[in-house]
Amino acid sequence: MGDSAGDSSQNLREEAARMVELAKELQDAASGFVSNTCNEEQSLRQRALVLESNLKKLRSSIDAAVARGSIDRSVTEKLHEELYKAKYVLTDGDVASLLPSKTHGTFLKMFLGPINVRAMRKDVQLNVKKEYNSYKDRTAFLFLLFPSTLLLLRSWLWNGCFPVLPVQLYQAWLLFLYTSLALRENILRVNGSDIRPWWIYHHYCAMLMALTSLTWEIKGEPNCAHKQKGVQLFLAWAMMQGVAMLLQNRYQRQRLYTRIALGKAKRMDVVWGETAGVEGQLWLLYPILFILQGFEAYIGLLLLKTAVAGVVSEWQVIVCGMLLVVMAAGNFINTVRTLMVKLRFKAKMKRSKSRQELDQGLPPSNLMRGKQS
Amino acid sequence: MGDSAGDSSQNLREEAARMVELAKELQDAASGFVSNTCNEEQSLRQRALVLESNLKKLRSSIDAAVARGSIDRSVTEKLHEELYKAKYVLTDGDVASLLPSKTHGTFLKMFLGPINVRAMRKDVQLNVKKEYNSYKDRTAFLFLLFPSTLLLLRSWLWNGCFPVLPVQLYQAWLLFLYTSLALRENILRVNGSDIRPWWIYHHYCAMLMALTSLTWEIKGEPNCAHKQKGVQLFLAWAMMQGVAMLLQNRYQRQRLYTRIALGKAKRMDVVWGETAGVEGQLWLLYPILFILQGFEAYIGLLLLKTAVAGVVSEWQVIVCGMLLVVMAAGNFINTVRTLMVKLRFKAKMKRSKSRQELDQGLPPSNLMRGKQS
Repeated sequence: MGDSAGDSSQNLREEAARMVELAKELQDAASGFVSNTCNEEQSLRQRALVLESNLKKLRSSIDAAVARGSIDRSVTEKLHEELYKAKYVLTDGDVASLLPSKTHGTFLKMFLGPINVRAMRKDVQLNVKKEYNSYKDRTAFLFLLFPSTLLLLRSWLWNGCFPVLPVQLYQAWLLFLYTSLALRENILRVNGSDIRPWWIYHHYCAMLMALTSLTWEIKGEPNCAHKQKGVQLFLAWAMMQGVAMLLQNRYQRQRLYTRIALGKAKRMDVVWGETAGVEGQLWLLYPILFILQGFEAYIGLLLLKTAVAGVVSEWQVIVCGMLLVVMAAGNFINTVRTLMVKLRFKAKMKRSKSRQELDQGLPPSNLMRGKQS
Repeated sequence: MGDSAGDSSQNLREEAARMVELAKELQDAASGFVSNTCNEEQSLRQRALVLESNLKKLRSSIDAAVARGSIDRSVTEKLHEELYKAKYVLTDGDVASLLPSKTHGTFLKMFLGPINVRAMRKDVQLNVKKEYNSYKDRTAFLFLLFPSTLLLLRSWLWNGCFPVLPVQLYQAWLLFLYTSLALRENILRVNGSDIRPWWIYHHYCAMLMALTSLTWEIKGEPNCAHKQKGVQLFLAWAMMQGVAMLLQNRYQRQRLYTRIALGKAKRMDVVWGETAGVEGQLWLLYPILFILQGFEAYIGLLLLKTAVAGVVSEWQVIVCGMLLVVMAAGNFINTVRTLMVKLRFKAKMKRSKSRQELDQGLPPSNLMRGKQS
């Protein structure tokens, strides 16, 4: 108000020109930053790749020397320890995120297109992992809640006959849940997690089953007990599955923390083996898992039987039956494999422990020489 | 083989120690790189935020001055041009990717968890956009192919009665398609695209409709023509939609290229307005779009009518009917809005063109002074 018109106009023009100038400077700085970052990233990646290939060569030289018998076992073990240390930087250090990742895979590309879902910073990756765990926790709870509610309402309110809508809402939720789990696990894999591929395939099968069950006609008023037998069995299995998921999550998280504390685990691992863990829970969890898998296969076979006997002739019954049998078999095989790795690791730990006790009297190793200060 | 045993062992030990050393150096370099990058990013972001807020202040000063009448219109327009230039750096320069992005939104978080899907480099962002366009092309083709095949087979092979499975496979494909489109569009939005929110909501509605239609019982042998009337109408609409999508894609891509060439478009825009574009196609495309929207609403109302009349009593009919009406209305409103923006822009272009011709004789503006060389 105090300015004369010309003055104000002049001020504004100068201010605007200054802004344009600042904007240009900022643009230059930003484009310099982006290109510098790319170059540095490229050179670090190059160094990492060279180190990786040298490590591979050294490993095969060591193997050859062992085969010739030209070095003895205690030295070999020390050498492997060194290799492990160097390798650790490449797989779990800051440089890990710069190395070419596992490919994104068809599933992610189908849903998301070619976007990069890899986090560059370790703490972001860990955050993704943490969120995945808490997501599994929340859903395990719902996984238990939904089918048990449906089963309870069936006997209390619905006189032994499911209405169609609540069951279909539950199936739609399952479809969403399995899709999101499959997407999240694929993202974890790209971010360096060691998740066993089977568990992802398993979720693809489960997606297919949820989709199939959505089209499954269960409304059959004259004889609903007969037509809904499959749904009922499936819900019973889902309840057990919910309990197992809760147990498993609690157990895995506990073990992951132990392993991180011991420095054994890459924190991105979706836990599946290698450490003996908490014995008590192990003896509780594994029997439950095997029983569940048996029950899953049983329901699958039951569905196939009803289809073959011609009681329910819809194709959905056959597809769901086969998927359940496949999932049960795959789960069983992978659980056994995990158990084997675990037991082997335990045996190895015991051996190396007793050897350490033998070695106690020897002079300290001169392995860590070289340029190291 | 030539080495003595001790020699070989010694060499291997030295080599291993060197590797560990190199790995440590690499780790230090990488962690330095990551923290430097974060710091620089932070400082650039700070500068960008300051510039942004200063631009806002300047804009309101200009508006105030205009309201007071203390600067005349030609100066105001020049000032706005300057502001636009400065703003452009913040919205489409290299610094744009460093500014806080639009939030990821509930939909992305639900499916993917807290992963960041924003690309830092402009060329990657453009690649995502390009892939989205070619994805839309491919799917528009399938969008036309599937329903027309179903309709043809119905009269040639299936004697006027759809079998359930092919229709359900088509519906499952629609569910996948709409989910992936919604995910991709959300990702584009995070990457700075200006896509109108309605088009994303539209895909949520379409997802819901595909899911609902999957549970829709169409098997009705005694009187399938009656029970499948809705499906048949829907397929006819889908065919028209396929044609419109092909036309629209071709038209939008052509226009995007023109706009990029003219420097008008941020390349991340999902084209929705502001330029007049190719007149001929405009007069072809808009009538088709309006006809389609009318047809969509008509099918929706027809479905609601059958439900009210009690011919088909399933809830799916009501939900699908309502969704179609909502989508038709939303599409119509947003198409009209786009058209209005387009016409306003065209009028403005004409005005400024005629003013430019008036200004031709004046001396060059002294606006671009300041530190500029």
